[in-house]
Amino acid sequence: MSSLRELLTGEPRVVTAGIDLLAEGVEAQGAEVVRTDWRPPLEGTDGPLAVIASSVDPAAANREAVSRLVGVSPHWTGVAVARDVITGMGERTFLHAGPPLQWDDCSGPMRGALIGAMMYEGLADDAEEAVRIGPSIELSPCHHHGAVGPMAGVISPSMPVSIVEDADGSGVSYTTLNEGLGKVLRYGAFGPEVEERLRWMEEVLGPVLASALERVGPIDLKSIISQALQMGDDGHNRNRAGTSLLLRALAPGLIEGDEAVDLRSSVFRFVDANDHFILNLVMAAAKVGVDTAAGVPGSSLVTVMARNGTEFGIRLSGTGDAWFTAPAPFVDGLYLGAFTADDANPDIGDSAITETVGLGGFAMAASPAIVGFVGGTAAGAIQRTLSMYEITLMEHPVYRIPILESRGTPTGIDAARVVRTGVLPVLNTGIAGKEPGVGMVGAGIVEAPADCFTAAIAALAEEVSGV
Amino acid sequence: MSSLRELLTGEPRVVTAGIDLLAEGVEAQGAEVVRTDWRPPLEGTDGPLAVIASSVDPAAANREAVSRLVGVSPHWTGVAVARDVITGMGERTFLHAGPPLQWDDCSGPMRGALIGAMMYEGLADDAEEAVRIGPSIELSPCHHHGAVGPMAGVISPSMPVSIVEDADGSGVSYTTLNEGLGKVLRYGAFGPEVEERLRWMEEVLGPVLASALERVGPIDLKSIISQALQMGDDGHNRNRAGTSLLLRALAPGLIEGDEAVDLRSSVFRFVDANDHFILNLVMAAAKVGVDTAAGVPGSSLVTVMARNGTEFGIRLSGTGDAWFTAPAPFVDGLYLGAFTADDANPDIGDSAITETVGLGGFAMAASPAIVGFVGGTAAGAIQRTLSMYEITLMEHPVYRIPILESRGTPTGIDAARVVRTGVLPVLNTGIAGKEPGVGMVGAGIVEAPADCFTAAIAALAEEVSGV
Repeated sequence: MSSLRELLTGEPRVVTAGIDLLAEGVEAQGAEVVRTDWRPPLEGTDGPLAVIASSVDPAAANREAVSRLVGVSPHWTGVAVARDVITGMGERTFLHAGPPLQWDDCSGPMRGALIGAMMYEGLADDAEEAVRIGPSIELSPCHHHGAVGPMAGVISPSMPVSIVEDADGSGVSYTTLNEGLGKVLRYGAFGPEVEERLRWMEEVLGPVLASALERVGPIDLKSIISQALQMGDDGHNRNRAGTSLLLRALAPGLIEGDEAVDLRSSVFRFVDANDHFILNLVMAAAKVGVDTAAGVPGSSLVTVMARNGTEFGIRLSGTGDAWFTAPAPFVDGLYLGAFTADDANPDIGDSAITETVGLGGFAMAASPAIVGFVGGTAAGAIQRTLSMYEITLMEHPVYRIPILESRGTPTGIDAARVVRTGVLPVLNTGIAGKEPGVGMVGAGIVEAPADCFTAAIAALAEEVSGV
Repeated sequence: MSSLRELLTGEPRVVTAGIDLLAEGVEAQGAEVVRTDWRPPLEGTDGPLAVIASSVDPAAANREAVSRLVGVSPHWTGVAVARDVITGMGERTFLHAGPPLQWDDCSGPMRGALIGAMMYEGLADDAEEAVRIGPSIELSPCHHHGAVGPMAGVISPSMPVSIVEDADGSGVSYTTLNEGLGKVLRYGAFGPEVEERLRWMEEVLGPVLASALERVGPIDLKSIISQALQMGDDGHNRNRAGTSLLLRALAPGLIEGDEAVDLRSSVFRFVDANDHFILNLVMAAAKVGVDTAAGVPGSSLVTVMARNGTEFGIRLSGTGDAWFTAPAPFVDGLYLGAFTADDANPDIGDSAITETVGLGGFAMAASPAIVGFVGGTAAGAIQRTLSMYEITLMEHPVYRIPILESRGTPTGIDAARVVRTGVLPVLNTGIAGKEPGVGMVGAGIVEAPADCFTAAIAALAEEVSGV
């Protein structure tokens, strides 16, 4: 039977690219359709890509950058007070998530968190006073200080912070201790309940954890994250396994501690009550990796994706300290209780650093149970991970996904691949209420904005061509 | 196009049943084959099935039995000494895994475990003496005493045992505390190292756990098992998540305990060092369920699958205390170090109770990482779970598998479906060395022997027809 004859007499077999409407029309006629997720390259990027390819060896640069990214071995080594360890932290410095931000541009939850932090630091007695002095405080991105924070990501001088260091001592990062659920600063809540918890974290949680850590020694976060991926975590919005393994590592230090038994017990119970406790540490572990991967000339590896609640910003390994920003998008998700999409703030937080190192939305296939939290189906979660292999530089050698026959997670976003394929990084994330003080309203899935990548590639082309 | 014409001119589409050779032949010719796993019904079972169907309403009986099986809510309520809580336990009583067994029929690992237990109980000073008095001790199946034990499953009077009770107080079961890995009694090892550990378990582990449990209150095993399935456990050979959640529940009781800090710390570290610690408790939780499901007239629900290392035995809800046995099969698996299949004992242990309640091999789809331990692929693990839906009565309402879009695990083996379909229950299991004293040599997958089910269905027919 000739091919032509087969085409005319056999059942049609159709491959569609991108346009669902076409696929649905063909399927309605009873024919089999293989859908592919093809999208056109992002507009205006052909020229810059050609410049990059002709000026440097981008493949070699990216190999160097991504091998640094996955080569670190971050350990949780201690807990200290922010002002004592974070460089450039003055008494009126407030670090925040995402790219640089002015007080007047702050979204509701960011403003709420800053208000809460100013009250906690004793700079203001109430919200009104905090709003008045807001424009006079120094705002600076966590990422500029080797730090990261989820959601609003506010770090003020008196807060206890975890210290995460590479095993060989070459890299260090800092992050807040996770406050738990409910009315918490990172979702923009403030007031007596928030302040009281922050005070307890400063006076009890921080010191007791510091002493427990001293007893048990540095905790290997790479090993815990790797195991947690085998146990249904994605490392961003599902962290029950990682937090469980962290508690197993910490508990002997709490059993053997010198502090009063009720203090040690309250610390265990606080961490145990919050399955997301390890999230901040996963983020700090990622920060050690991306900082190590930064500064490779010609590399289009994405080293930062972060949102301040107003803008979404990225950085590339090959473009130094420059941020490439776009308006922060809204998240498609599931809402808690009576909240709806109308209550949602745009995407916020440094936690997109998990996706930047191959976790979170990139590792959703490892975490089918997460769909109960962020929406969608288990099959869809696998599909999201599979699509991220199109825009990443390698399969992670240590972070593996059992259901994909232990394939490594898609790791190291290549901005060049993003603009060539039009496939945008997918993030799992929590959703903050848009009004200050509301807190968490839901969780869902969002794509990074295309404009960040277009701008970053244009800048990289300019950088490598020496213009 | 007529169907006949299509058959002659289109591509052939072939469905094969059971015989791989045929499928391979067709595939070699480039045609598409859908393989189904059809097997003929087990021989000689048509008559008994007809008798059962005409004498009772088997569907109603099975509904009643399986709803009892899944309806229990087992909690870990305490730890006590075996002789104080297990009925029918004399000073020379040694409980063992599987169906009834005589000393002379004991396999190597069962003999090794009994030798070790006799030395631990002070009945013998060395292995030779233990072998001499072996025929004089009383051997009795754990299952006859509301108890279960993994591998050899030996419970002797002085051992500490966990107590697991249904929330409404209607059912109770007992199980040993898991000894950990290495040279352990349950794999047939004996000698000073084994005895010393058993002594420590009696003097420290049991009492400290008992006191910790009193502080934290009964631990809800159904909830932990349900969460653990969302975290990559199968509840039989992968128990890292369940053990982690158990440690989280226990730790406050250890932090707050009255005992010397080194005792409490050693207990935490002992449990923490053994990701299988919760296995025995999962088994005891299952035992509460199957005992509650026993005794429904006309029900072909399998309430016991257990192996003593020599024979594999099952019981049905509708056939009272009768055991239906066949020679224990060999396990297809992965071997540790230099061990090979030649070193393996036949299948052994009460742990097949996990499969009996829809866990273990039945829940492998929840546990893709387990294939690194028992062999096979993640896709194969899903396939095994899917095939078990063919022989089970329901999808578990609480134990769910995220990757199957949270479908309940296949639960409640119906012996009638087993004989009708020829699909045999699949078990994940450890492999003991065949020589006494060797210990664990591997882990793998095994099918329950068909003859048990054929005999059980014949007996059920006899029972319901009143002959």
